[in-house]
Amino acid sequence: MAPTPTAPKGPAPPMSAEIRRREGKLSAQTVTALVGDLNARFGNRIVTSQAVREQHGHTTTWIANAPPDAVLFAESREDVIDAVKICAQHDAPIVPFGVGSSLEGHVNALNGGLSIDFSRMNRVLEVHSEDLDCVVEPGVSRKALNAHLRDSGLFFPIDPGADASIGGMAATRASGTNAVRYGTMKDNVLSLGIVTAEGKFLRTASRAKKSSAGYDLTRIFVGSEGTLGVIVEVTLKLAGIPESISGGHCPFPDVRSACVTAIETIQSGIPVARIELLDRLQVQACNAYSKLSLPETPMLFLEFHGSEESVAEQSRRFAEIAEGNGGGPFAWTTHPEERTRLWQARHDAYWACIGLRPGARAFATDVCVPISRLADCVEATQADLAENGLIAPIVGHVGDGNFHVTPMIDMDSRDEIEKAEAFGKRLALRAIGMGGTCTGEHGVGQKKIPYLDVEHGPDALDLMRRVKASFDPQNLFNPGKIFAI
Amino acid sequence: MAPTPTAPKGPAPPMSAEIRRREGKLSAQTVTALVGDLNARFGNRIVTSQAVREQHGHTTTWIANAPPDAVLFAESREDVIDAVKICAQHDAPIVPFGVGSSLEGHVNALNGGLSIDFSRMNRVLEVHSEDLDCVVEPGVSRKALNAHLRDSGLFFPIDPGADASIGGMAATRASGTNAVRYGTMKDNVLSLGIVTAEGKFLRTASRAKKSSAGYDLTRIFVGSEGTLGVIVEVTLKLAGIPESISGGHCPFPDVRSACVTAIETIQSGIPVARIELLDRLQVQACNAYSKLSLPETPMLFLEFHGSEESVAEQSRRFAEIAEGNGGGPFAWTTHPEERTRLWQARHDAYWACIGLRPGARAFATDVCVPISRLADCVEATQADLAENGLIAPIVGHVGDGNFHVTPMIDMDSRDEIEKAEAFGKRLALRAIGMGGTCTGEHGVGQKKIPYLDVEHGPDALDLMRRVKASFDPQNLFNPGKIFAI
Repeated sequence: MAPTPTAPKGPAPPMSAEIRRREGKLSAQTVTALVGDLNARFGNRIVTSQAVREQHGHTTTWIANAPPDAVLFAESREDVIDAVKICAQHDAPIVPFGVGSSLEGHVNALNGGLSIDFSRMNRVLEVHSEDLDCVVEPGVSRKALNAHLRDSGLFFPIDPGADASIGGMAATRASGTNAVRYGTMKDNVLSLGIVTAEGKFLRTASRAKKSSAGYDLTRIFVGSEGTLGVIVEVTLKLAGIPESISGGHCPFPDVRSACVTAIETIQSGIPVARIELLDRLQVQACNAYSKLSLPETPMLFLEFHGSEESVAEQSRRFAEIAEGNGGGPFAWTTHPEERTRLWQARHDAYWACIGLRPGARAFATDVCVPISRLADCVEATQADLAENGLIAPIVGHVGDGNFHVTPMIDMDSRDEIEKAEAFGKRLALRAIGMGGTCTGEHGVGQKKIPYLDVEHGPDALDLMRRVKASFDPQNLFNPGKIFAI
Repeated sequence: MAPTPTAPKGPAPPMSAEIRRREGKLSAQTVTALVGDLNARFGNRIVTSQAVREQHGHTTTWIANAPPDAVLFAESREDVIDAVKICAQHDAPIVPFGVGSSLEGHVNALNGGLSIDFSRMNRVLEVHSEDLDCVVEPGVSRKALNAHLRDSGLFFPIDPGADASIGGMAATRASGTNAVRYGTMKDNVLSLGIVTAEGKFLRTASRAKKSSAGYDLTRIFVGSEGTLGVIVEVTLKLAGIPESISGGHCPFPDVRSACVTAIETIQSGIPVARIELLDRLQVQACNAYSKLSLPETPMLFLEFHGSEESVAEQSRRFAEIAEGNGGGPFAWTTHPEERTRLWQARHDAYWACIGLRPGARAFATDVCVPISRLADCVEATQADLAENGLIAPIVGHVGDGNFHVTPMIDMDSRDEIEKAEAFGKRLALRAIGMGGTCTGEHGVGQKKIPYLDVEHGPDALDLMRRVKASFDPQNLFNPGKIFAI
């Protein structure tokens, strides 16, 4: 049978990739009506006090706080379904909130609306030890999950430093220090429970370890930053707790020799579990903040997982590579307390930065480049910092080619803000120019939006817009993130 | 500012998730016009002979051949762009073709149109040894790629058995025997070059090892089976060739003890590279086809990758687990020729099945369940086969919970076809009922379509339809696959 006569003769026009624009906040009248309906359904679990609203806007970096109109302390999937339906009726935005540890302003309610706080949806629902997976509510934090799992011999390996919520980590495609070995949230989420813009609940996949049954809805939602639906359940892969863990630190004369050592370690197939770069300034900051006495020179922090024999072999092989590049000595231990002290210092690096300049705010950056370009990118960035007189320690998940430069800025100085913004732009474009990305793990949020077009090109970005427009035509979900409002 | 007065007061109606329907083939007039335009652009690289057209319909299993109206032997991205534009003008379907090794009728041109053959787009464009990645054209086969890489010390680990094209493997989210250690195509594709329905070329991601820069377009296209765009370039992760490889086979008294051994091997953290189940009938078939003399009892084939010491330790630990479950002895070797003979037999398992019943056609199945349910699912399936008198060997990538039952059917017997179809349905529903999937690695193609609704539910499937409708509003790309036409 021929195509029907009404079939298009030329190419069909592309779907409108226009995302519905929102401007400004909701009217006072809408807020009153919205809060009235929310109160009627949720009672005192709806909070509108200024303090609580501001706690649910962005509080971590220099990005300005934008509080929601109300906060719901959700306790069940049904709560979220009803909240989405009520918000849709009032055309009010919905912003999911985990613990607020995101660094790109993700939880800011730029157009007001409802923040859904998941701190009460923090249960571990199922642990399937035989299958090495578990099902959790989005509000459980990664540390709480690992405490829950302790006796099972399993652990959840993704570790972004902060004690983030699992839902938030899925939403930003988080990773961190362990990703070089265990992958990112993309690799460790088996399935998500989602509430859609129409207030329906669905699961994106089964618990099977792999599937070819249609489009990868799980990966569409992982990293979608709350813009496509609300995550109300997460099924995670788990890993066996290693028989032995060794860790340590290794000084280097310069950043390049540390980067080259990281590259050669990866290439040689050593299954390193963590390999973290700290530049001289970051080491100074950590010494001060965490009361350490590390030599103040660029440094790699490392961790190896495996059998006792294997971690010793890995440590020895790494030490050889480091020495070959002028680094060392590599001081390592399998003693848990010493290791913990070192990694606590690494995790506190962000707070150590803030300690460098009390009263200043952190300007978060997060580029990631192919590892062959890592030394080039870090060196060019250090030269840029020196030239522009910015105080900005560098830490990096260098096994993945991902590093963070964190200028500390005085928020009262328009000049400093502009200088940091100009630096951030040069850094993002430098990484993209080297075949990399403007964000390796933090997400786009508000401040990386301008780089998406450069990084992906207009046609790829247009496909992303089509996904958004077709999943959330009303633009209810976290408006103003990933895409400009 | 308040929402504009035209903003919806109730929830906006969901986007139409209707995929444009196509029925039947193109008219003779349309075919003439289409072929005329294609000839004018591509000359003798457009072939319309019946033999070539039929070669480009499905030829592997019992699914009927549905040839395209014409075949283009594409040589460049520009060819594909122009072909898509010409087809769009004539409203003619486009079906990408790698080597035709798919098992679900993916390359059938159900509505006619153009098959784009990628056999001439088979170049390895870039190898980045330092970054452990490469960029290839979609027509390169996995064996050709590995031959190209041999001197680099790197290899591409995904091994579905057939010498499939990389483009086809990305399109079906393929995996195979190595996936338990190296993951699937989902995990090993860094980026794709895509030609869209509007004839635009885009890349889905940079070469950075990880990114949080917007929606995961790469994973949207991996496994999309040619229904969202045409893959014209693939950036793949590579792995280091292991220092040592050991392999062998281990007999078991029954399928359950073999499955339990697989489960315990995974749980104990042994990083097994391949762990394959063959049931008694499959072992018989392999003995006959590959001239082996394996004991005719359920069997695991295994492979371990690592240092010489490590593969020996892994092999020993596995042997202990097998013995604890009544299996063994585990005969293993690091000798390449013996290993190759074993794995060639495993790869030829499909042809060995066909050898069991000359003249019969294979009915492909591909369920995958959480590994804790694997023994239950295999045993229930064996009972089902026995009850229904079907000749159907079983092989399985049991480290992932994925197995294939392959009834051999006489295509002249309507009764046998119906019996196999009824069995396939029971098998798919059994796996889904155990928390699994109707397809672990083959893809949906034509014959798994009825199960998607059961597996995902209507609301998840609706989101998939929205993606399809928004990326390919004209339904140009591989109509009738994943979704009913």
